[in-house]
Amino acid sequence: MARDKKIELDLLRGFEEYLPQDQLQFNALIDLIRRNFELFGFLPIETPSAERREVLTSKGGSEKEIYALTRLAEAGDDEAANKGALRFDLTVPLARYVALHERELAFPFRRYQIQRVWRGETPQAQKGRFREFYQCDIDVVNRDQLSPLAEAEIPSVIYSVFREMAIGEFRIRINNRKVLKGLLQEFGVPEAKVPGVLRALDKHDREDAAKIRHDLEREGMRPGSAGQLHELVSGKRETGDTLSILGKFRSSLCQQGLKDLENVAAAIRQFGVPDSAFLVDLGVVRGLDYYTGTIYETTLTGHPEVGSICSGGRYDDLAGYFTNTRLPGVGISIGLTRLFSRLREAKLLQPLDRTPAEVLVTTMDPQSLEKYLKMAAALRGAGVNTEVYLEAAKIDKQLAYANRKGFRVALIAGESEFANNMVKVKNLATREERAARDHELVQAVRSALKNES
Amino acid sequence: MARDKKIELDLLRGFEEYLPQDQLQFNALIDLIRRNFELFGFLPIETPSAERREVLTSKGGSEKEIYALTRLAEAGDDEAANKGALRFDLTVPLARYVALHERELAFPFRRYQIQRVWRGETPQAQKGRFREFYQCDIDVVNRDQLSPLAEAEIPSVIYSVFREMAIGEFRIRINNRKVLKGLLQEFGVPEAKVPGVLRALDKHDREDAAKIRHDLEREGMRPGSAGQLHELVSGKRETGDTLSILGKFRSSLCQQGLKDLENVAAAIRQFGVPDSAFLVDLGVVRGLDYYTGTIYETTLTGHPEVGSICSGGRYDDLAGYFTNTRLPGVGISIGLTRLFSRLREAKLLQPLDRTPAEVLVTTMDPQSLEKYLKMAAALRGAGVNTEVYLEAAKIDKQLAYANRKGFRVALIAGESEFANNMVKVKNLATREERAARDHELVQAVRSALKNES
Repeated sequence: MARDKKIELDLLRGFEEYLPQDQLQFNALIDLIRRNFELFGFLPIETPSAERREVLTSKGGSEKEIYALTRLAEAGDDEAANKGALRFDLTVPLARYVALHERELAFPFRRYQIQRVWRGETPQAQKGRFREFYQCDIDVVNRDQLSPLAEAEIPSVIYSVFREMAIGEFRIRINNRKVLKGLLQEFGVPEAKVPGVLRALDKHDREDAAKIRHDLEREGMRPGSAGQLHELVSGKRETGDTLSILGKFRSSLCQQGLKDLENVAAAIRQFGVPDSAFLVDLGVVRGLDYYTGTIYETTLTGHPEVGSICSGGRYDDLAGYFTNTRLPGVGISIGLTRLFSRLREAKLLQPLDRTPAEVLVTTMDPQSLEKYLKMAAALRGAGVNTEVYLEAAKIDKQLAYANRKGFRVALIAGESEFANNMVKVKNLATREERAARDHELVQAVRSALKNES
Repeated sequence: MARDKKIELDLLRGFEEYLPQDQLQFNALIDLIRRNFELFGFLPIETPSAERREVLTSKGGSEKEIYALTRLAEAGDDEAANKGALRFDLTVPLARYVALHERELAFPFRRYQIQRVWRGETPQAQKGRFREFYQCDIDVVNRDQLSPLAEAEIPSVIYSVFREMAIGEFRIRINNRKVLKGLLQEFGVPEAKVPGVLRALDKHDREDAAKIRHDLEREGMRPGSAGQLHELVSGKRETGDTLSILGKFRSSLCQQGLKDLENVAAAIRQFGVPDSAFLVDLGVVRGLDYYTGTIYETTLTGHPEVGSICSGGRYDDLAGYFTNTRLPGVGISIGLTRLFSRLREAKLLQPLDRTPAEVLVTTMDPQSLEKYLKMAAALRGAGVNTEVYLEAAKIDKQLAYANRKGFRVALIAGESEFANNMVKVKNLATREERAARDHELVQAVRSALKNES
């Protein structure tokens, strides 16, 4: 239509999309994560994008960040428009899901969920903050009680994921909420100030010491204590040193937390995670108040600027607002959109070992369509992704398209090849070309696909 | 928390979620569709859930059905809340995507997209109408011109998908917009009335003849013509009969459309789709006005009540509102949420040949955790999905959990087994149990997994 009707095409700020090559790489990460989650016996669920607003705001949901739905025209009795809003995480929908389907689920309920969430945060691409992004969550939820072993298993799943992702050295850092609360007790922080102090401490890796100490003092701590507490939380130590420092705090809460941390650390080793991949670290604080036991964050050793790529923790009651059943659990979440964006910037993504664009059947001779289609059908029957070039174009243009789209092999045949029941199999990476007889086509293509990788 | 705080848990009307067993089956369908799309050389893209409102309303988007975003609290300068709305299909986002990234894409651009869309329609579960649902789309878009062969290829992709889905006999029904417009000309329908008449005809398989004729008369047709046109469109005929009836209409538009239909039908056969799986059918009308050539619908032969499970068509200009480049294309869309719901009701879904819940390692002896974990690690290393039961529970309860969750094999070992370096491998379907030595564990489990299927 007319030039004057042009509409602004830019994406909404905080929303992202990829070109096909990047989408393929993103999808490969999702497949990898999903395969590892399933390897550990987690089953998939998906929940609707929109929930009742009161479900989302019941527990920890900051109203400020929630997108509600409305209708451009009159909504009538449309519940979604009148009462619905987009989920901001996958934990609240999980709580609602477990409460709603409690009788139909097998406990311990181990679920994974890989879906988009929406948050009205200020988008800052350079900090990897988006308004729409993927989360990849696992949770183990049981009725009444949950073994502490579940807290040790979670890092082993995450270890399996990031090891296969081959994104360099990483460390799953763990801490324990009891330890943190015990320390605050020892530093004389009154119960009512605990959430504020935790939120201030949670920023220790993003803000400078002066700012954190100032915030702690605003929560009522004396300058000396604020400094000591900040130093304790932000200091870099190995697991053994951290555990011995904690041994000096004698309150029962600290001692209980220390014992839990020691047990979880020992079990994590039994679950096969080497010491090089996890760390007991008092700097793991987590802002959310529903965590009660082990808490997790994960960082790339060589790229601390990327921040935590995966975090979560243990909670004592998942769905108290929705059901009377006590549902303790433990979970962790990979913020995949952010992780992907950072890995791409840091050039840490592995090249794909497989592309869906495998073979392009070029079509020099329009009269021979049926023969081209038969070759394609034979290859597809053997599981080889095959496209037939259907537009009228010179062979050079067809090969240029093949290269641009990332095909690995092109088939070339015209009258003379067909007369001899032959086809040329061209490896687009090495530019090698060999002739294959009709009946050995599949084999010849397979060997060309292998040669290249 | 307290009983008095309970919140309503029901999903918003028109929104769905599944239990894990159903989710697995749904995911298997998505995997199958994706594999087939890739087999034909389509590349994946995803677009943001929200677009600028003016993008969505530019072309065919009925404002009435669009969900806009807003914020529960003050939105400030949040573009998404002030200007954003959820997509209602995947075609408008594709148009915006191609216009935005035109220079970075290889043409012909063949993309698939499997994502959720949202429509504020009146939800009617019994008719399979949802407010949030998955669409699985493929489109081929080229610059300036597009070969009619692309119109013949689309049915071959769909044939490949539904054949593998094994949901019984189906027919891809095709028609041509030129034929329809030519017929309306012959029946004296003025240009301005064409959209209204097409919309009336499009309902012929859902409404009775009297209602359709009444609607046609309201568009200005005489009763005699309305009856003849309705009979022509709704009559059940084989492809050959339909083509010969069309031969009698001599206007150039009808003749051109007939020639296109004949050519596409011949090419569809060359693409390997048997006559039993497609049909030239004047009853395919499609309400949308942007189609200009071949149009498609797909029905299950044994279950006409399910309605069209896949539809689309050829268009001459995808993105006229967004770019000056002429972008002709052809596409088709599977409404998967609706299809899944109908297949489930009609009990047409194939049982899964593979479940992620393969092996449960039961844990009779808490002291031997490390041994249980080693077995699990060995199995996972061999690609076998394996869960370790981590809660303290009697063996009967553990086996009940294994059955409930659908595990296929349970491993059972206690002190006496460990003393002999043995483990019991129990096939949960056949209830057979055999003892395996430590070093033959993987092999024994593999053979138990195979036996069952």
